[in-house]
Amino acid sequence: MKKIFYLLFALLLTSFVNAQAQHHPSHGGAIHSKGFATMDKSGVLTAYEFERKTVGDNDVLIEILYSGICHSDIHQSRDEWGGSIFPMVPGHEIAGRVIEVGKNVTKFKVGDLAGVGCMVNSCGVCDRCKAGEEQYCENNKTVYTYNSRDFEGDPTLGGYSNNIVVTEKFALKIPQGADLARIAPLLCAGATTYSPLRFTHVGQGDKIAVAGFGGLGHLAVQYAVSFGAEVTVFDISEDKRTDAIRMGATKYVNVNNPEEWKGLENSFRVILSTIPAKFNVEQYVRMLKVDGEMVLIGMPAADQIPSVHTGALAGRRKIYGTLIAGIPETQEMLDYSIAHNIYPEIELLDADADAINRAYQNVIDGKVKFRYVIDMNTLK
Amino acid sequence: MKKIFYLLFALLLTSFVNAQAQHHPSHGGAIHSKGFATMDKSGVLTAYEFERKTVGDNDVLIEILYSGICHSDIHQSRDEWGGSIFPMVPGHEIAGRVIEVGKNVTKFKVGDLAGVGCMVNSCGVCDRCKAGEEQYCENNKTVYTYNSRDFEGDPTLGGYSNNIVVTEKFALKIPQGADLARIAPLLCAGATTYSPLRFTHVGQGDKIAVAGFGGLGHLAVQYAVSFGAEVTVFDISEDKRTDAIRMGATKYVNVNNPEEWKGLENSFRVILSTIPAKFNVEQYVRMLKVDGEMVLIGMPAADQIPSVHTGALAGRRKIYGTLIAGIPETQEMLDYSIAHNIYPEIELLDADADAINRAYQNVIDGKVKFRYVIDMNTLK
Ligand SMILES: [Zn+2]
Ligand SMILES: [Zn+2]
Ligand SMILES: [Zn+2]
Ligand SMILES: [Zn+2]
Repeated sequence: MKKIFYLLFALLLTSFVNAQAQHHPSHGGAIHSKGFATMDKSGVLTAYEFERKTVGDNDVLIEILYSGICHSDIHQSRDEWGGSIFPMVPGHEIAGRVIEVGKNVTKFKVGDLAGVGCMVNSCGVCDRCKAGEEQYCENNKTVYTYNSRDFEGDPTLGGYSNNIVVTEKFALKIPQGADLARIAPLLCAGATTYSPLRFTHVGQGDKIAVAGFGGLGHLAVQYAVSFGAEVTVFDISEDKRTDAIRMGATKYVNVNNPEEWKGLENSFRVILSTIPAKFNVEQYVRMLKVDGEMVLIGMPAADQIPSVHTGALAGRRKIYGTLIAGIPETQEMLDYSIAHNIYPEIELLDADADAINRAYQNVIDGKVKFRYVIDMNTLK
Repeated sequence: MKKIFYLLFALLLTSFVNAQAQHHPSHGGAIHSKGFATMDKSGVLTAYEFERKTVGDNDVLIEILYSGICHSDIHQSRDEWGGSIFPMVPGHEIAGRVIEVGKNVTKFKVGDLAGVGCMVNSCGVCDRCKAGEEQYCENNKTVYTYNSRDFEGDPTLGGYSNNIVVTEKFALKIPQGADLARIAPLLCAGATTYSPLRFTHVGQGDKIAVAGFGGLGHLAVQYAVSFGAEVTVFDISEDKRTDAIRMGATKYVNVNNPEEWKGLENSFRVILSTIPAKFNVEQYVRMLKVDGEMVLIGMPAADQIPSVHTGALAGRRKIYGTLIAGIPETQEMLDYSIAHNIYPEIELLDADADAINRAYQNVIDGKVKFRYVIDMNTLK
């Protein structure tokens, strides 16, 4: 009797698993994808079709609904950091819907909303990976969402496309009903700004500064204000002043106006720089209090990365760079952003190569105020 | 009866105070001092006699027995940091004996041993001063032991002399029987190295590096080893290797030998640089682990201060400078050094202008191994 029971149970289980599998759009094979790629360092995007790997047992297949445009997409598309892999499908600010799950997946079910940020894998066994800081994997096995190589050595391809396959651990949970278009840029820009503000324990009454008020900066200001900090914003253009104040900054400094720099020495406990170009770092460091910290999160082109005179760092005035956020903190940031209604200001683009190329040029020319997001529903 | 009793008591008290005062060498007037000064930025020392201020109610008069020669004495004597005040009596590594105390002094009595380091006063009321970090006085009122101005605006004159007057708060206690000649350099070099090692919580099992193995470096190594750290030493000369190992370093890197640099990436939690000249900072920062800290305590001439490429600071690899130590921590360092038998290796000099000038040249030429100390007993 017992044996028959087990046999029946096994049959039932198998048929249940098969029933699930029959709903898989991939039918266990490679995934066909459509999107946009840069074919060389001209950085010009064209329509591109390609195959993604099979959905593995721990993977989810996500239908991409929105994909943000990050400044680093442009740097990498134009090979401004060196080592770019072409054809390149950029995009690491991905929000969409799960349409297939591997058999071991427990975190998601078909129909769930999900996000993918800058990473899709890492060694998983080193101290940093175990601590949830996969971006600092000690075995240098962080696999980035695009312009990187997976464990088999194949190039990864990013979010300017209609779908992506990712191991469930690196997919972020997004609640039903969330505003996916505005959530997409949080996956990189939100994580990149949230993490250093938490790391430096920015909180109630802290006087901090945000240098550069674009895609990263306008999120940094919103987070810092929500943590209770008094925020001063630095940027080059006068027309960002009202936006900064509207988002909760107490002061805006037009850096081209020397008068506005006066009296700011020894003022800030933390300065977060999102400036994506060469700048006078000492001028900022000088505004730190003793024990203050300047955190660099803007990533200029390699030949634009500034140096700092170490004489300016006396009085334990620290300077360092942080890179995105680990997966657990990225999830924390998403949950926090939704709970506190913190979102980027976005401009939606059609999923069209010309539209994206124009957007790239606008970012390069400083003509975008905050963040472009590609609406993948419009993909033809 | 009561009134007579009080009167008698008052008379007795007055005569006691007078009896004390009669033992004051200063008799309440200005203090005559003999020593050595640089008259201009040639940096050449000559014999020099001068007057110090009266011993105030909170002051002690210290007979200087030993005075260390710090590299910064040379920078300031030669006006290499700018703003030098001449005539300059250098010296901020001072050990001696109290020979007179003001009437409010409670910390010392005549005959006690005492030290003076880099500072002789500060505002005393700002948060930093109240926290015992007078070197970072928020009101910029730190008065340095020489080449500085006191609250009346008069230049301060340092320890290359037979005595000094200092408010008791800025004098350090040294136990009877202590080895004053070896204690003198602790007042600057000891404080300068001890403080950042405490600030970075260097302890059992930490892997740290000390770059530059001279007057500062050889003390840093001894402190770090005594805290339980595993210390790698970097210096340019082969003949310091055995000294470094003898003082407890586990590894010595001759920086001129490229082979010895290999395999050191991502190795150290803390790197303490005592290098007093321009150097390749990135080469060191690269050896920091994620979240590691590079602390700069060497003070090169102004035109020799290095810059660092901020791209090397990714992964929260911090860089900053610290300045000496506050008075409470300097006392802690002295007590710790004596309890753990940590001293500089010194070479005694006669209190003679030619001898000191030769010593200066040897420091400039890198010919002194560790620390010169002037024996003030030999002053003529
Ligand atoms: Zn990004
Ligand atoms: Zn790892
Ligand atoms: Zn010194
Ligand atoms: Zn103060």
